[in-house]
Amino acid sequence: MRLGIFGYGNLGRFAEANLPLFDDIELVGIFTRRNPDSVTSLGAKVYSADEILAFRDKIDVLFIAGGSANDLPVITPQLAADFNVIDSFDNHSKMGEHVYNVDKSALTSGHLALVAAGWDPGLFSVERILFESFLPEGKTFTFWGKGVSQGHSNAIRRIAGVADARQYTIPKDEALTEVRNGNMPDLNPKTMHLRECFVVPEKGADTAEIERTIKSMPGYFEGYETIVHFISQEELDRNHSGLPHGGFVMRNGCGAENAHRLEFALELGSNPEFTSSVILAYSRALFRLYSEGKRGCLTVADIAPKYLCKAEGNELVSRFI
Amino acid sequence: MRLGIFGYGNLGRFAEANLPLFDDIELVGIFTRRNPDSVTSLGAKVYSADEILAFRDKIDVLFIAGGSANDLPVITPQLAADFNVIDSFDNHSKMGEHVYNVDKSALTSGHLALVAAGWDPGLFSVERILFESFLPEGKTFTFWGKGVSQGHSNAIRRIAGVADARQYTIPKDEALTEVRNGNMPDLNPKTMHLRECFVVPEKGADTAEIERTIKSMPGYFEGYETIVHFISQEELDRNHSGLPHGGFVMRNGCGAENAHRLEFALELGSNPEFTSSVILAYSRALFRLYSEGKRGCLTVADIAPKYLCKAEGNELVSRFI
Repeated sequence: MRLGIFGYGNLGRFAEANLPLFDDIELVGIFTRRNPDSVTSLGAKVYSADEILAFRDKIDVLFIAGGSANDLPVITPQLAADFNVIDSFDNHSKMGEHVYNVDKSALTSGHLALVAAGWDPGLFSVERILFESFLPEGKTFTFWGKGVSQGHSNAIRRIAGVADARQYTIPKDEALTEVRNGNMPDLNPKTMHLRECFVVPEKGADTAEIERTIKSMPGYFEGYETIVHFISQEELDRNHSGLPHGGFVMRNGCGAENAHRLEFALELGSNPEFTSSVILAYSRALFRLYSEGKRGCLTVADIAPKYLCKAEGNELVSRFI
Repeated sequence: MRLGIFGYGNLGRFAEANLPLFDDIELVGIFTRRNPDSVTSLGAKVYSADEILAFRDKIDVLFIAGGSANDLPVITPQLAADFNVIDSFDNHSKMGEHVYNVDKSALTSGHLALVAAGWDPGLFSVERILFESFLPEGKTFTFWGKGVSQGHSNAIRRIAGVADARQYTIPKDEALTEVRNGNMPDLNPKTMHLRECFVVPEKGADTAEIERTIKSMPGYFEGYETIVHFISQEELDRNHSGLPHGGFVMRNGCGAENAHRLEFALELGSNPEFTSSVILAYSRALFRLYSEGKRGCLTVADIAPKYLCKAEGNELVSRFI
């Protein structure tokens, strides 16, 4: 299978870095909207995004590594007119619209697309579906963290007087424990998580004012238990330069007579590295399904486990079932 | 979807009990090889197994609730000649052969079958495939328990001087902790689990001899850390009458630069109740795939999550992705 990577930020770079783990996938090239000469890959050829159509018959799956806010809603449907495409669109409130637009484009052009691949949405979505299918009566809880939220870190960096920042989303122990004990409390993201911020103030900045601004920021911190630490740039670089993440999907449910509990957990050394690995496995699945004649736009809900795995047939049965 | 249940032991009974949780599935009847008059269902009609062929056009999916040692290898291929069938075959060493035989029968008759549904094999198999797909480099560990092993309990009951017994398989804390810490130790079932036995001796029995016999039983206890308690029948009935179970699938893996950890865990109030619930969800999937034209024998590796879940289309996307 021949892969193209469109966009070369964290996700694109880790997709390239992870490729040796997927030895049935060959990387054709990286396509960037920056000047290709300014982009240093790990070895793959770098082309201008403008050249992408020349690769129409040379790429089996194109991974679009762009942002969900502005890039993907436009680019994924557009490129689905000429390629089998996969993205990690994660704007939940616009998911239905995105699937609809990509499906229309892919069906018209005779391609296959898969949107919202990654771990949430993605692997967590799969677990949520399995859990509710097997325990129809019950309650599902999704916890995120402990991990760096890049959106929240960026929001802090935009505050006047802030030189740099890193924000960790952390599941609250008491909420985790209550769910693990089999209870079905009425929780929401604000009662399930706390937000810990490491902020580098600019020289002479009013740190009390920065802390107030962070804690009252609507949509990001307002209503959350938020802890703010002011530290030096050196300390931030030394102790908070990684992008670890994690999370839990739990379902407490009951059958006819008994209570049951299901839990999925992940602990990631690097969020973009694992996300790109998940995307590579779904790229493999996408190509196999395209080869079987499937067309249109899929989500992870449509992908049977066997399509993700390099092992096939009897080997798959004997090693995993 | 119209379901038939062939066999009425623990699994068959819980499948009937769980049916109200699956309101898109209608139970046509229970088929027993015992005298139907001797079987008291929870409300469903009970027929003789001999009558099954009269229901050829009245049953969409037939759940064969039989034993993997002797029943299923014969009955599943046989009934796949006339029905879409699902079973919970769990003899790993004969899995390939079973899939082959059922596939041949179902393809010849134009039916669809799904074998080895449940939690292991079943849900655990799915997790193992997902985990290795997303983290190709790494090591997967499957722990069983804490829970009752009916096979081991029965093995103890066959020893001379034993009136009754219950055996718990328990993951060893030190092995769990080592894997959770991200290590990749060289483990096997004997170093991962201990076996705790609650035994009711017959009056005057030689308990030291019973304990020796248990601990040295090849294939069951030999080589395991085994703890034997002798208790009264009253205590066994009071404290050990349930069939709880549980387990963990864990994978420690690494991407290009970072370590990652995936964990799936379940804690079941009743093993057969949850197993039957999983089987009902896979029965729904089986019928949907049959309706789409799929034929032959599948395993859980072939089933996309969407087929398991009652929610469909836009509702599935907006609720789970």
